[in-house]
Amino acid sequence: MALEESDIQPQLTRRRPGQSNITTPRNEKDRVQIHSGTEFGVTLGTPIGLLVMNEDQRPKDYGGSTMDVYPRPSHADWTYLEKYGVKASSGGGRSSARETIGRVAAGAIAEKYLQLAYGIEIVAFVSSVGSKHLFPPTSEYPAPAANPKFHDLVNCITRKQVDEYLPIRCPDDDVNREMEDYIRGFKDQDDSIGGTVACVIRHVPTGLGEPAFDKMEALLAHAMLSIPATKGFEIGSGFNGCEIPGSQHNDAFVSTTDVDIPAVVAESGASRVGLPRPKLTTKTNNSGGIQGGITNGTPIYFKVAFKPPATIGQEQMTATYDGSDSGTLAAKGRHDPCVVPRAVPIVEAMAALVVMDTVLSQQSRLMARQLLPPLKQGS
Amino acid sequence: MALEESDIQPQLTRRRPGQSNITTPRNEKDRVQIHSGTEFGVTLGTPIGLLVMNEDQRPKDYGGSTMDVYPRPSHADWTYLEKYGVKASSGGGRSSARETIGRVAAGAIAEKYLQLAYGIEIVAFVSSVGSKHLFPPTSEYPAPAANPKFHDLVNCITRKQVDEYLPIRCPDDDVNREMEDYIRGFKDQDDSIGGTVACVIRHVPTGLGEPAFDKMEALLAHAMLSIPATKGFEIGSGFNGCEIPGSQHNDAFVSTTDVDIPAVVAESGASRVGLPRPKLTTKTNNSGGIQGGITNGTPIYFKVAFKPPATIGQEQMTATYDGSDSGTLAAKGRHDPCVVPRAVPIVEAMAALVVMDTVLSQQSRLMARQLLPPLKQGS
Amino acid sequence: MALEESDIQPQLTRRRPGQSNITTPRNEKDRVQIHSGTEFGVTLGTPIGLLVMNEDQRPKDYGGSTMDVYPRPSHADWTYLEKYGVKASSGGGRSSARETIGRVAAGAIAEKYLQLAYGIEIVAFVSSVGSKHLFPPTSEYPAPAANPKFHDLVNCITRKQVDEYLPIRCPDDDVNREMEDYIRGFKDQDDSIGGTVACVIRHVPTGLGEPAFDKMEALLAHAMLSIPATKGFEIGSGFNGCEIPGSQHNDAFVSTTDVDIPAVVAESGASRVGLPRPKLTTKTNNSGGIQGGITNGTPIYFKVAFKPPATIGQEQMTATYDGSDSGTLAAKGRHDPCVVPRAVPIVEAMAALVVMDTVLSQQSRLMARQLLPPLKQGS
Amino acid sequence: MALEESDIQPQLTRRRPGQSNITTPRNEKDRVQIHSGTEFGVTLGTPIGLLVMNEDQRPKDYGGSTMDVYPRPSHADWTYLEKYGVKASSGGGRSSARETIGRVAAGAIAEKYLQLAYGIEIVAFVSSVGSKHLFPPTSEYPAPAANPKFHDLVNCITRKQVDEYLPIRCPDDDVNREMEDYIRGFKDQDDSIGGTVACVIRHVPTGLGEPAFDKMEALLAHAMLSIPATKGFEIGSGFNGCEIPGSQHNDAFVSTTDVDIPAVVAESGASRVGLPRPKLTTKTNNSGGIQGGITNGTPIYFKVAFKPPATIGQEQMTATYDGSDSGTLAAKGRHDPCVVPRAVPIVEAMAALVVMDTVLSQQSRLMARQLLPPLKQGS
Repeated sequence: MALEESDIQPQLTRRRPGQSNITTPRNEKDRVQIHSGTEFGVTLGTPIGLLVMNEDQRPKDYGGSTMDVYPRPSHADWTYLEKYGVKASSGGGRSSARETIGRVAAGAIAEKYLQLAYGIEIVAFVSSVGSKHLFPPTSEYPAPAANPKFHDLVNCITRKQVDEYLPIRCPDDDVNREMEDYIRGFKDQDDSIGGTVACVIRHVPTGLGEPAFDKMEALLAHAMLSIPATKGFEIGSGFNGCEIPGSQHNDAFVSTTDVDIPAVVAESGASRVGLPRPKLTTKTNNSGGIQGGITNGTPIYFKVAFKPPATIGQEQMTATYDGSDSGTLAAKGRHDPCVVPRAVPIVEAMAALVVMDTVLSQQSRLMARQLLPPLKQGS
Repeated sequence: MALEESDIQPQLTRRRPGQSNITTPRNEKDRVQIHSGTEFGVTLGTPIGLLVMNEDQRPKDYGGSTMDVYPRPSHADWTYLEKYGVKASSGGGRSSARETIGRVAAGAIAEKYLQLAYGIEIVAFVSSVGSKHLFPPTSEYPAPAANPKFHDLVNCITRKQVDEYLPIRCPDDDVNREMEDYIRGFKDQDDSIGGTVACVIRHVPTGLGEPAFDKMEALLAHAMLSIPATKGFEIGSGFNGCEIPGSQHNDAFVSTTDVDIPAVVAESGASRVGLPRPKLTTKTNNSGGIQGGITNGTPIYFKVAFKPPATIGQEQMTATYDGSDSGTLAAKGRHDPCVVPRAVPIVEAMAALVVMDTVLSQQSRLMARQLLPPLKQGS
Repeated sequence: MALEESDIQPQLTRRRPGQSNITTPRNEKDRVQIHSGTEFGVTLGTPIGLLVMNEDQRPKDYGGSTMDVYPRPSHADWTYLEKYGVKASSGGGRSSARETIGRVAAGAIAEKYLQLAYGIEIVAFVSSVGSKHLFPPTSEYPAPAANPKFHDLVNCITRKQVDEYLPIRCPDDDVNREMEDYIRGFKDQDDSIGGTVACVIRHVPTGLGEPAFDKMEALLAHAMLSIPATKGFEIGSGFNGCEIPGSQHNDAFVSTTDVDIPAVVAESGASRVGLPRPKLTTKTNNSGGIQGGITNGTPIYFKVAFKPPATIGQEQMTATYDGSDSGTLAAKGRHDPCVVPRAVPIVEAMAALVVMDTVLSQQSRLMARQLLPPLKQGS
Repeated sequence: MALEESDIQPQLTRRRPGQSNITTPRNEKDRVQIHSGTEFGVTLGTPIGLLVMNEDQRPKDYGGSTMDVYPRPSHADWTYLEKYGVKASSGGGRSSARETIGRVAAGAIAEKYLQLAYGIEIVAFVSSVGSKHLFPPTSEYPAPAANPKFHDLVNCITRKQVDEYLPIRCPDDDVNREMEDYIRGFKDQDDSIGGTVACVIRHVPTGLGEPAFDKMEALLAHAMLSIPATKGFEIGSGFNGCEIPGSQHNDAFVSTTDVDIPAVVAESGASRVGLPRPKLTTKTNNSGGIQGGITNGTPIYFKVAFKPPATIGQEQMTATYDGSDSGTLAAKGRHDPCVVPRAVPIVEAMAALVVMDTVLSQQSRLMARQLLPPLKQGS
């Protein structure tokens, strides 16, 4: 596959700190370099080595005297010590969200393949910050997944559109502005707030995901909950889906005969080599594109909850590492008052990696089948 | 480890169908036999083979003429065909929830170890059915995790207590009764309804879970979303935690000096061999027992969403497998109108398997460290 | 894929004990039953459950009083106890060669696929018993791999031909007879003897195996050394290849234009769907079909060393489990004086499993490439 | 664990090119830098990032015009193209033996742990070059493993002693000198020659390795055959062991009561924490330290075959990549006429990695057992 730094950089740039005055003031360029795995701009099939240098590291920002003595509440400082038996300074070590750079870079490579091969599009956006929701419950639609406007949005939204709503990335003018003010309020009080990110994966082939332990939604949940600061995951109708009767929640099948093929799919490798187009789709999509753990070709959509960042400037009462004393900690370091705007490309990247893994596995199955003589059985 | 069928049977019995008139009328005894891996009631260290026979299988219940022609909406029938290229009859094949027997049996073995080694207790219960909640939002506590009564419950509840609330397993007399009537209403209309299961894991050692991709909450989310019919997962404060400021959400550390050691922990293997007790715990527990992906020793609690079962007796408009026609399907087969009461032991089993895996991995690390000379570094 | 018991049984029958008076007198039918994973004779894509019952087990044969007190020399009895902390009776437990039934059954399924998809043929035969060699070193050809007769044999030999040389499976009338007498000599003295099995895999596609840790020969070595009682593995020219200069050892490339395509390949799925035929092959084959860890399409051939069975009827001086005493052990149980004749289908099965794994992985890569737009780069 | 560059550098230095006039003239310093995973000279429990820069790379040495057109015989050039569909220039890309730097560096870290925790010693040496053997077969001892002098050597030899026999690393004055002249002969003719490396692992704890697929010898075979240019592996008595009767090959057990504990073991972590010492050892060691796939505490020893390097300066008749033409290739690039002297630290490193993996796994099992109440069963 053709691959250059310019395929990877845009998502790193969307993730990097310092994008606005409500994100962390660390100003890192996060320039990616391809070190190995390609030659003359083409992947060689061997591991791709990428390097992103830290350009604005200031360890002294973290090693304040109180932070040596007190583990930060709700942060990994103490559990890390319990796990490994040593204390790492410098911004939480392994548990720094800076490790997500690697995820975003790898995700960008996966995405390029998925787009070329199937026309897959992955778009995430901010769906809530604290109590401010893009789709607040209404009497008619208590749940966003039931709201036709929600489906209109996820069926069409592009990254370019999402980035028109910087610095929040919530695709609605009013809500976006409201969220910005709201976050600034927390920042001004040296406090922090959480939020949710919604994500849609369009034009996924059918048949991805395994029927038992590695259901597609299980792989996505694993991937999403592995992002720092996440607290929850829901697929399709999610928690609200529990409150709807089966007769209403079930997604009736309809023929795809009358459904237009999007240009990006028509031009993909799958169309070019003539992979069969599915004969069915569904009228509604409460399933979120997955049935029995396996994709059905309709858009996969899900929501991820992010907690308020644990590191805040406010003084907090807490205990020393050895439990011998208590006291107050006012954290140093440069941290976001709300992580969801920068989490958008991370969610997209993890989604791309999951889809890539399942695509490779299903392609192996498809080709294995292709090499067998036709079965006598009807199907 | 000593191991007999009687260690495994109770959880299988809690899972089996036919426990009441609101669960599926299939009456399966689900008797487990140990076929290999033990000798004279002691595990040999080699794979443990278990066998549970189907005693009340009636394939003709499934192979109705309409079900051969129409894939069941929101069921795995069609995606399974898309994935494998063949149609399996007999109750959905691999995607039958009957596969969860193996999970429950394996979980029971893991649980026995965890209880003996650490005094770990895993208890799940029904926290909602449709719109009926055990802890409905109140003006004072909009989120259950903020409600002290919720924490009182998860800190103490036992399986025995949960089973006093059969057939629903929601540990509150009034809510339990209300839920039963509510489910019967759906059953009477050949319809179905979803719900949520909450689960707590108490007395977990610190240090479980990996810092990046295999965070404890990511492993739990993977495990829970791999259970059939699940739609969401939240750890600790979960989705509601997104709406609380960091200053309030953070869990302050306190010394464990004044905290009593429960008898079950005092008598465990870990106490016997003198594994060090953690010096810190937290005052509140919005984290749900996990910080930075690693357990901190406080109770892990989480919630799992289950959708309304897809197979319902009501007629549904849908399309044929080949997309050539549409029509109505009225499913046969014996199915639960609501799966959450029987999901309780499945959630417990998957939780046990995750904890077991992470315990084995952390024990290897602990012993590796123990064999090294003491470090000169302070910690 | 179409799959029935009759696809699997023949190899199990070739492996089973009691085939002649120089193999173990246990008389087990080893009938296989397919329990799950197929319907109407077609695989469903889900795990295939197979059951082979033990029909002639006599635990009392093993539990003799001396065998409870003395671990058998060079057997797993003692290391098993050291590993697991418990002693398993009944024929060595997990380390009984009876576990190879599962390998042979699984291998038969893999082989069926490989044959249908690529025309792959896997044939093993006995190449030496003790000091009796099928190709003893001569002054002209000190190494078998240099002997043109060896290559004539591996390029053509079939299983049917091998089985004409029962009970030894060494495809040469004289050597076969000599070996039989030779083994009977050891049997008569309650002693045992080792030997080697050679194996060839023909019509393998190019590109199998990974360039670094999972080189094709590394996977084969892993698989072969996992068979009980093995002591060595060599690929292609093997240990003898170390003694030949590079100028002579290197396999010159030649065009495949003039090479006939075997019927079994011409009729395979790969030919049917038009997978490209490699343009090159090699004149000699010291590489044994693998270069840089990756298959080059020429026959893969290798040799596996089997030690003399440890369990012998002769009295042996040894120590008790607790080291407190020494004494003599005369083992009971029914054991082969030489395992190589029965090892033939086991070697074939493990080879099939390795090729199957690498084929699935390479097919995923091939299809992934197929879905990408053509590269501008020359190759 | 304390860890600094100086723990890793010595083995890299032993591996690097340019150590003598019979190895490749590339002069690379191969200086290692620790980039992550340690702080203040102590490992943090997180991934350790190491960097070794190429300092003497000359791609033009490889990109000669003939090498663009002709794949090198018996090299990975062509199979690599078949696998990945692209041609990598620069010294064979992924299949360059330069990738073994990473193995040696990782092995050095594993070795440090194994030495501290158990007093494990891993020493490899050259046992043959072409037809020159350290232990040539004699009428009394046709096989080295039967020769008491071989066992005297492997029971005591140290790396320091091996390095006294540079540049060959064959620990015998006469044979060493003979081998050096012999290799120079091949070098002078632009030819190459193979050889074997023997390796011993002393003071391994009992119980390492799994009983079925991941037998200790299978893991070692996998690891060794993954080293570039290897052709064979034998454990303990190996191929020669096939020719010895069981009554003679079996290793009788004896008590360890009278066996002295080496100082390096007495001072190890395992002794310090009181891990039980095995009660038995064996009188002979034909098993090579492994029985039933599991270590028995006696020295593990094995031999690895290396082919003559494929890249030689001599002209070779071969075919073009596209099979359209044939011609002669005289390879450029700087290559060893014989790889075994430099393979010594690579074999040691791969052995260390295998032992490390199995140690971690067995330590988990040991600690799991320790936390269970004592069994009533006798053992």
